[in-house]
Amino acid sequence: MTRIFDEPASVISFAAVGGRSEGEGPLGDYFDFISEDEFFDCPTYESAESALQRQTVDIALEKAALARESIDLYIGGDLLNQCVATSFGMRDMPSSMLGIYSACSTFTEGLLLSGVFVSASLADKVVSVTSSHFYSAERQYRMPLEYGGQRSPTTQRTATASGAAVVSKADFAPFIKGFTIGRINDLGVTDASNMGAAMAPAAYDTISLFFKESGKRMEDFDHIVTGDLGFTGSEILYKLFDMDGVDIRDKHLDCGKLLYDRQKQDVHSGGSGCGCAASVSCAYLLPKVQTGELNNILIAATGALLSPTVNMQGESIPGISHAVWLSHTKEGL
Amino acid sequence: MTRIFDEPASVISFAAVGGRSEGEGPLGDYFDFISEDEFFDCPTYESAESALQRQTVDIALEKAALARESIDLYIGGDLLNQCVATSFGMRDMPSSMLGIYSACSTFTEGLLLSGVFVSASLADKVVSVTSSHFYSAERQYRMPLEYGGQRSPTTQRTATASGAAVVSKADFAPFIKGFTIGRINDLGVTDASNMGAAMAPAAYDTISLFFKESGKRMEDFDHIVTGDLGFTGSEILYKLFDMDGVDIRDKHLDCGKLLYDRQKQDVHSGGSGCGCAASVSCAYLLPKVQTGELNNILIAATGALLSPTVNMQGESIPGISHAVWLSHTKEGL
Repeated sequence: MTRIFDEPASVISFAAVGGRSEGEGPLGDYFDFISEDEFFDCPTYESAESALQRQTVDIALEKAALARESIDLYIGGDLLNQCVATSFGMRDMPSSMLGIYSACSTFTEGLLLSGVFVSASLADKVVSVTSSHFYSAERQYRMPLEYGGQRSPTTQRTATASGAAVVSKADFAPFIKGFTIGRINDLGVTDASNMGAAMAPAAYDTISLFFKESGKRMEDFDHIVTGDLGFTGSEILYKLFDMDGVDIRDKHLDCGKLLYDRQKQDVHSGGSGCGCAASVSCAYLLPKVQTGELNNILIAATGALLSPTVNMQGESIPGISHAVWLSHTKEGL
Repeated sequence: MTRIFDEPASVISFAAVGGRSEGEGPLGDYFDFISEDEFFDCPTYESAESALQRQTVDIALEKAALARESIDLYIGGDLLNQCVATSFGMRDMPSSMLGIYSACSTFTEGLLLSGVFVSASLADKVVSVTSSHFYSAERQYRMPLEYGGQRSPTTQRTATASGAAVVSKADFAPFIKGFTIGRINDLGVTDASNMGAAMAPAAYDTISLFFKESGKRMEDFDHIVTGDLGFTGSEILYKLFDMDGVDIRDKHLDCGKLLYDRQKQDVHSGGSGCGCAASVSCAYLLPKVQTGELNNILIAATGALLSPTVNMQGESIPGISHAVWLSHTKEGL
């Protein structure tokens, strides 16, 4: 389902916070804050992720000189069971709160819902936030890190990172011009160490759907950005588009490929997690759309609807991808 | 955050499906389908919950003579980790899918978001669905049932049930007239066997907020309905309102109190789960608003943002409640 807004909302402020590894990556200098460790002054990984998320929101609010109370609605989600990074991260916020879940495509789900509430004049200011944490995610989805299990070449590193966006009506960029809400795609991938392969078909489906349903042309977009396909998933995405006679290699960016230095940081197939697309977007991409260095980008965050329980019961890993069109100009295209 | 729609959407069709215990309860005859067992022809509890959810959606579509393809957007959520009942339940649906999570208040979150998309003319037809399953929930949140742990008097029985609503523009009731998106309320309850106490403050906050922000009068509503406070939580709710000098006892219904026969069915404090508010609403309440037996009801589904991991780390259980105003008449009040 693709919709183009009559009255596009703006992302009036945004922030990105990362952990130590994210700070050591090529985008480290673009983050608003980098923690020296993974604990964010908390006793557990789970509470650390909540603190990370709360800090990211507070920085985004501070950059716009907004108080927590001035926000009508917080929308958030994360990868932890029962979305607790968000429940506890947003517990102190004095406003309404909507919880969402689309695995690693949660960031764009939140951003498009923020656009819907603001564009429909149902809210004045909405904050959308997502996070992930390497340590809390690994022990929940795969192995406790202390086990020291060997990782296969297709694995990705869950980013310890968060991104937050404040959405409101304004006359400055980035504008949320439209969106595609994705469909569940399941090609039968069962390897929990190959999220890229599970998500690539969903990214292909959503990106194709956006251009088909909106009537926009891919050549008018500076970049087509995926969330966290990583190196493995990106190659699959290229092959899927090749079958349509479309070469997206030059236009394509993947947040999972951008976040780390693959050689130096030993991250195998790249970064992943709700916090990957969120932080790379808020640290690196949104500023470029704001200044006009980029005019139009489509961010298709990508989620693997992986469940350890169901996976061990023999089920596959369905993928989903939600896309948001961000633009430097309110009108046009 | 409370909003009243300029152009209210309608719930054009709805369905409720339950398990054996739900069928044996006082509302059993109101359900569209009651399964003879808890398996819904599936090999695991998790896949059973997905099948239950899919069946509920299909019945709701069938009642409106709609094909799966005619739906623009499916919105769904459940209590399982990574919301897998929904991911796998909705996997075969050919349309866009948004995942949401507010614990047991997910049903009203979905219903209000459906109202937003339809009222803002961003979607023609939206299906909102939630489910829960006694066996899949108990082993995830508390104990495997085989363990046979004794249950305290404040515990509730997670309903094996699902409710689905098809929302579109129409000139017949029930109309979705408005909503309140709730705030996270945390009064420090840490007892995972007393969800009612954890959720009651959130229900009180959201119901109060709805009447304060909308300017509506409680006396104009036939019922104020909570999701699954059960017997324990309902008493706390009454006391919170008592402090404002408001007696809601006569107006109040709780889906958790309605679903089972407390004496005969040994359910302690009543029913709970995403499927409780969803199925009681779709089986029992929406038909009465449709016929005009009830004119105006406020359904405030109630969610305990419980996480076994974080709870064992010593954290409390925050509550949240989202409310939807359903009416027999499009105009008025």
